[in-house]
Amino acid sequence: MTSGTMINQNKVDWLKSKIRDIPDFPKKGIVFKDLTTLLNDHEAFNFVVEALTENARGLKPDYIAGIEARGFILAPAVAHKLGIGFIPIRKPGKLPHTVEKISYDLEYGSNTLEIHVDAAEKGKRVLIIDDLLATGGTAHAACQLVEKIGAKVAGMSFLVELDFLSGRNNLPKGVEIFSIIHY
Amino acid sequence: MTSGTMINQNKVDWLKSKIRDIPDFPKKGIVFKDLTTLLNDHEAFNFVVEALTENARGLKPDYIAGIEARGFILAPAVAHKLGIGFIPIRKPGKLPHTVEKISYDLEYGSNTLEIHVDAAEKGKRVLIIDDLLATGGTAHAACQLVEKIGAKVAGMSFLVELDFLSGRNNLPKGVEIFSIIHY
Repeated sequence: MTSGTMINQNKVDWLKSKIRDIPDFPKKGIVFKDLTTLLNDHEAFNFVVEALTENARGLKPDYIAGIEARGFILAPAVAHKLGIGFIPIRKPGKLPHTVEKISYDLEYGSNTLEIHVDAAEKGKRVLIIDDLLATGGTAHAACQLVEKIGAKVAGMSFLVELDFLSGRNNLPKGVEIFSIIHY
Repeated sequence: MTSGTMINQNKVDWLKSKIRDIPDFPKKGIVFKDLTTLLNDHEAFNFVVEALTENARGLKPDYIAGIEARGFILAPAVAHKLGIGFIPIRKPGKLPHTVEKISYDLEYGSNTLEIHVDAAEKGKRVLIIDDLLATGGTAHAACQLVEKIGAKVAGMSFLVELDFLSGRNNLPKGVEIFSIIHY
């Protein structure tokens, strides 16, 4: 599902103009979308936080979760604007209390993510925000973690979605997906 | 130097009650201050962002920098509230464009941090925000990085400062240091 907030195409083009293409990063043949230039631009950064917040309101989350490390940049700002708590989803060994964990395959090797078991009460609605939806492996793992602790995924929001990787097809059916910028 | 914003002691005690002590993490004998329980609490989290923002206003920063990973949680929220841009200071190999880097010693081994060379224009004021000031090694490295790209450190702000580690003595003289909670 695609959720409701529509972003004007002129605004999307303007945001895209703030993103820097880095050829051959992290390896040859890949054009990396460098979002740091957008975050550095106060008007673009503010627009993105407002758009994510506006969309989040409609999903009525109890918490916003962010995925380490770049998801930490946007998710807490939205949580603060909504006046709700923030949940970090982290790499292994970083969260000090009892965790649920999940491992998932990457193109080469695998990754593990963890969440504190008491990060949200049973049945609470958690909106997951990350900077980029690529193949969807990380996003899917984050959804599973939220469900493992007994909470509900209120939706997933991204600054950028790489449509040509079809990552949203790897996310659980019925989850509301919102991306500001599509490539 | 200690900067001006004063936090009421009752509020500090209330914030401390939201922080969870984890004995023997990451290793035996260390009591880890788990801030995730504070971030999870919407009132405490909001209070912290407001306090950091209030203090930041007096320092007149052009940008807010955050240090990967936990500094990413608070710094961008403050940048958004002030309507200014965000600068990520990251672990090696994560920033895709040309970087300045710095290595510094830890108790065991060493760490490296990087910043994009064009993250701030020459002479611009950068406020560095991190979650915790411990021995000051990371914070000092972040100051040096900001100066390496020709910008000025407008100050450093922390959610928690571990006074017994005297980390502020390792920061450049004259830098305004603000910590909400002291242990």
